[in-house]
Amino acid sequence: MGEFDQDTAVTPAGPFEYAATVTDRWNALGGRPNGGYLLGIALRALGTDMPLPDPISVTSYFLRPATVGPATIRTELTRAGRRIATGEATVAQNGTDIARVIASYADLEKLTGRTVLFNEPPALPAPEDCVDRADIGAPPPGVTIADRVQARFAEPPGWMVGKPAGLPRSEFWMRLADGAVADPVALAALVDTAPPATTDLGVMGSTTLELTVHLRGRPAPGWLACRVSTRHITGGLADEDFEIWDSTGRLVAQSRQLALLP
Amino acid sequence: MGEFDQDTAVTPAGPFEYAATVTDRWNALGGRPNGGYLLGIALRALGTDMPLPDPISVTSYFLRPATVGPATIRTELTRAGRRIATGEATVAQNGTDIARVIASYADLEKLTGRTVLFNEPPALPAPEDCVDRADIGAPPPGVTIADRVQARFAEPPGWMVGKPAGLPRSEFWMRLADGAVADPVALAALVDTAPPATTDLGVMGSTTLELTVHLRGRPAPGWLACRVSTRHITGGLADEDFEIWDSTGRLVAQSRQLALLP
Repeated sequence: MGEFDQDTAVTPAGPFEYAATVTDRWNALGGRPNGGYLLGIALRALGTDMPLPDPISVTSYFLRPATVGPATIRTELTRAGRRIATGEATVAQNGTDIARVIASYADLEKLTGRTVLFNEPPALPAPEDCVDRADIGAPPPGVTIADRVQARFAEPPGWMVGKPAGLPRSEFWMRLADGAVADPVALAALVDTAPPATTDLGVMGSTTLELTVHLRGRPAPGWLACRVSTRHITGGLADEDFEIWDSTGRLVAQSRQLALLP
Repeated sequence: MGEFDQDTAVTPAGPFEYAATVTDRWNALGGRPNGGYLLGIALRALGTDMPLPDPISVTSYFLRPATVGPATIRTELTRAGRRIATGEATVAQNGTDIARVIASYADLEKLTGRTVLFNEPPALPAPEDCVDRADIGAPPPGVTIADRVQARFAEPPGWMVGKPAGLPRSEFWMRLADGAVADPVALAALVDTAPPATTDLGVMGSTTLELTVHLRGRPAPGWLACRVSTRHITGGLADEDFEIWDSTGRLVAQSRQLALLP
């Protein structure tokens, strides 16, 4: 079992209730558990109660910062359709709600309608010809997620080499560091695991208010080609769009989040 | 009081419960009430219980098609922070849930952090130099929303003049037809009121599964400059991105939805 599956595992604690442990192995800046990781835990619980296998649209509103330690997840099956089912999960720690998740599920293999793309996967050199984030420099202290998720760049963003260039967009390879193949639940987490695109504006960190991920396919094994960008910052509110394409050039996940800059 | 405010009005029906009437004046293709209009009703109810004035992020999962007639809205104040509050609303008709909404609220006037844009408002000729949708042709029978929302094009999309060009993107002016200034709640509806961008692929209509709107400002009076595009269709699932810029060139709303094509 891979690290992600292990660290997002849930155990039944009653009808529509689950227990989980938020580990210290997916911490972002400030030693805070990553929001995508928390979403992964919520989806593991919710998936147990859903009559269809794959999340296809997932939304999380982050209410309070998560902490390392025990968590409980309450789930609700909101609507069970034949092709699409929708449910809700609430993650709580110490009796307080910290995230509210809604998600729709389907069977991705049975979505056989038309496919038309007006976009291309990132044009990146082979992963072996790219530079690994770990070889550029050590992550800030406590950012343990850097040990769980591997990233490789053709050209690292300016801030990563000490020269923020004011360009909040980047393309790179990513994978779970233990080599596990990401399933749609892991993809929903991965879209939130890279440092914010706004870091290149000289802004350290951000607080995700809302994150929606659309899952389009179960990825083939191998590195995932990613594209991230922030296009609109107003009054300290920043969007961040993220795409993940699998090693065969297929779009497998797409997300947008709204984050509050410090 | 404008048509939108009138047709989204709610009356208290108990603690955290409201009654509303889904009118037949905002019907889309197939005579179905528009999803954005339904979201407007949900937000009118939710806004009543929120301690802050403006929705800044709004997500709706559409569970079943709405019908013209009475509706009830149950609300929940999920988290009341000093700067940001989050709540939830469930719209039901005939005892069955038809939409589940989560939204975060703030005071848009008090969000004074940095503003940086990597995008431009649509470059459109003045509205008086554009062609009005109503002058291009009559909407399909029963599409009453065309009487509530006015649109003007420098160049109408191909499908609108009988020549679908396979280009699911467009820029145009839009406003509430009665001239009312759209508030953030109306903006959250307006992003869903144009015909789907995929119509230009020869596809009539689509079913919105999930819609998230980020509200960035209270618009100035006047026409709203809009940009819509679909970039990824896989297995019959299509995204649609929508931007609304006000008459002073300020981004006021941005949305993405996931829709199932017929």
